[in-house]
Amino acid sequence: MSDTRRVLGLFFNPKSVAIIGASETPGKIGRVILENFAKKYKGAIYPVNPKYDEILGFKAYKSVREIPEKVDLAVIIVRAQLVPGIMDDLGAKGIRAAIIVSGGFSEIGEEGAILESQVREKALKYGIRVIGPNGLGIYNAETGVDTFFLPEERMKRPPPGRIALISQSGALAAAVLDWAAFKGIGISKVVSYGNKIDIDDVDLLEYFEHDDDIDIILFYVEGFKPSRGRKFIEITRRVVAKKSIIMVKGGKTPAGAMAATSHTAALAGTYEVLRAALRKAGVVEVESIDELFDASKCLLSYRELKGDRVAVITNAGGMGVLATDALYKKGFKIPRLSNELQSKLREKLPFHCVTVNPIDLTGDTDDERYRIVFEDILASAEIDAVVVIALFQIPTLTLRLADYIIEAKQKFGKPIIAVSFGGVFTAEFAKRLEKAGIPVYESPEKAARALRVLREYAFLKKRIH
Amino acid sequence: MSDTRRVLGLFFNPKSVAIIGASETPGKIGRVILENFAKKYKGAIYPVNPKYDEILGFKAYKSVREIPEKVDLAVIIVRAQLVPGIMDDLGAKGIRAAIIVSGGFSEIGEEGAILESQVREKALKYGIRVIGPNGLGIYNAETGVDTFFLPEERMKRPPPGRIALISQSGALAAAVLDWAAFKGIGISKVVSYGNKIDIDDVDLLEYFEHDDDIDIILFYVEGFKPSRGRKFIEITRRVVAKKSIIMVKGGKTPAGAMAATSHTAALAGTYEVLRAALRKAGVVEVESIDELFDASKCLLSYRELKGDRVAVITNAGGMGVLATDALYKKGFKIPRLSNELQSKLREKLPFHCVTVNPIDLTGDTDDERYRIVFEDILASAEIDAVVVIALFQIPTLTLRLADYIIEAKQKFGKPIIAVSFGGVFTAEFAKRLEKAGIPVYESPEKAARALRVLREYAFLKKRIH
Repeated sequence: MSDTRRVLGLFFNPKSVAIIGASETPGKIGRVILENFAKKYKGAIYPVNPKYDEILGFKAYKSVREIPEKVDLAVIIVRAQLVPGIMDDLGAKGIRAAIIVSGGFSEIGEEGAILESQVREKALKYGIRVIGPNGLGIYNAETGVDTFFLPEERMKRPPPGRIALISQSGALAAAVLDWAAFKGIGISKVVSYGNKIDIDDVDLLEYFEHDDDIDIILFYVEGFKPSRGRKFIEITRRVVAKKSIIMVKGGKTPAGAMAATSHTAALAGTYEVLRAALRKAGVVEVESIDELFDASKCLLSYRELKGDRVAVITNAGGMGVLATDALYKKGFKIPRLSNELQSKLREKLPFHCVTVNPIDLTGDTDDERYRIVFEDILASAEIDAVVVIALFQIPTLTLRLADYIIEAKQKFGKPIIAVSFGGVFTAEFAKRLEKAGIPVYESPEKAARALRVLREYAFLKKRIH
Repeated sequence: MSDTRRVLGLFFNPKSVAIIGASETPGKIGRVILENFAKKYKGAIYPVNPKYDEILGFKAYKSVREIPEKVDLAVIIVRAQLVPGIMDDLGAKGIRAAIIVSGGFSEIGEEGAILESQVREKALKYGIRVIGPNGLGIYNAETGVDTFFLPEERMKRPPPGRIALISQSGALAAAVLDWAAFKGIGISKVVSYGNKIDIDDVDLLEYFEHDDDIDIILFYVEGFKPSRGRKFIEITRRVVAKKSIIMVKGGKTPAGAMAATSHTAALAGTYEVLRAALRKAGVVEVESIDELFDASKCLLSYRELKGDRVAVITNAGGMGVLATDALYKKGFKIPRLSNELQSKLREKLPFHCVTVNPIDLTGDTDDERYRIVFEDILASAEIDAVVVIALFQIPTLTLRLADYIIEAKQKFGKPIIAVSFGGVFTAEFAKRLEKAGIPVYESPEKAARALRVLREYAFLKKRIH
């Protein structure tokens, strides 16, 4: 195991944590973070603040030097000017992992930049690895490590899941967590590394490669350090054998690139060079944060797509037409079914159903017609994936259709994704499907977009390995 | 008033309605429709069915000929073979408006096509105007005319609003109603005209032109009758002076066009010719059903956009970058603010805020910084519209920010749209804004897309008038 991986283990899964700048004052960052850890984290918690003997029931220490036990991780919240001195304490105590949440470094100008380089020097001197400064740090749904200093009533915490997010924007990461919790989407780990003076995307990727809790790694990036590009690509090529990496790049347009320069001083230009390389290495790029999660839903269910031939099965002709348009725009084929396959279907379906593709079961369909079509379509070699559209406003459909879809997925192993659009009853149907790992989308466009990411991932992975 | 307009008044706002094929049998279409009317419709209801003397407490008639009072609208639910005979009854009774919900006409083949032409001939002979057959008919939230034969537990009905929808797909229209009800979006009228043997888009547009309940007319179309193209464009040019028309076209790709042929036998090809003409006439085309409604939200609040220069105000740098990318892609400018304007802002804002554009108030902002920026930005001649991004995970923001945004809208009259992404607290904020007519979007991409439609509408309208 590389040293970086070992140290990152201390960040994500520490046996003990010192919270430097812990506070009892309501609303203060040092209080929110202590409360976060108190809620779920099972290891030892050592608040550090010379003003207190005890904070929220935990014995407090004047300095980490006084903590009698071993400390795996230090979380630093004190103001920037004090951080270099704190690094000396960490060095003396032999702490190897530090999340510096404090701001006031290079992002505020020259004075901060000097402090930042002092911190960097001390980190090197003592062999301390750093996440931050000026980031929200780490959220780990499994271990309860949570330095996101936003109180629960503002930012809900999502349940554990198989997705990791690395974000160059802290506020964006916080909003994503809150939203994921709201939607019930599981998240494993989120990292907001702020000014990124040490631990970076490459290190995190190297750690996540071996993290069995993670299947999908999401990135929001505005720019890369060119010096780390080669290494990033090298690791990516390895990682995509087992996991998918999906990226949103901020600052892709000239105007956006200007904005990114103000935001993170990212050199968006260098990305243009890196871009083809990233794709070659297996990174799938998407256009927005919601596409990131729509795509994740699909990739959590399916890892393979053998070809680009999709069958659309619908009870609403108009939705079938829109799905066909959307799939075609994403480069899929919606092939006319062979006469042989159509005859098979026509034998079993009422005569007014359309069997060409889209297969339109029409507005009077029952669950059974869908089942019949699944059997023949998914068994045939003509089709690689199925988009099922079920509008539940039609009273002849029941929730049993969900079971048919789930059975078909299990029996044939080809990707099936569903489109359902409506109200309460639709939500019920979607819930049942998603619980069984069938991704459901509100619109044909979103379904096509997600299927495109699956195809791209499967294609890139195959090309590499 | 044209005769078409007068007759369409009978469809949407009849004083009395005969329901031919009304039934007491639970689950039957004739029962669902009778129940729909019984719920909300204030006029006289005459169920017609020779098997009953009374249905659900209403006196039933053997034929419309027996109804002693005047009948404005007939709703026909009986099977196709009986419809020609029913048309004779309507003629004898002097009924001038009929919604034929029944299917079994040209959509099922030659036999049905013969019945359909018989119905058409009788309609002409007696001067009866027809919506349908094989469509869901009309939903009118104001008068309670509701021939959508889907029971409430499957398809919720939305509250009245200022949007009309004309859909070539019945199931799509039903799903939209259900979804709109779920989301609390108000709808005025929906028409599903099925095989469209008489009343068509042109007629409906002519009626909606003078309907004071409607500001926005949405279309889902797969194809137009070429013979009505000129008339459609002529009316559109008039309508867009007062109302906006937004259209989703199904079957725009080669694959989608094939699918549309199976669905509605629409000649998608002819659309290519019509397309430029439609735009010239003021129709704004969008790419999906959800864009239709995202755009409507914006157009319900704003009718004018003087130029394409947008200011982005954010408390999350990353979201500012993504919004800039999204706006740029839609053809907007995100101009660097003048030095003069920037100096003004810098005097009042903390030094670490970014004033270029996007204006990044950073993660520690309070409501007040937003207020300060609104005042100077919206008063300046440099900016035509504002996109406000407020991530509410930051505890220093309060719901007061919503009031500041509302005040700014009222004071300066320029379009302001908001982006907010997250959970419970965010929903609260969004609700308050939307109540006051500020459109809120979950992502910068959706906001940019909606603003694009506003720009397009304002531009096309100006060019025409």
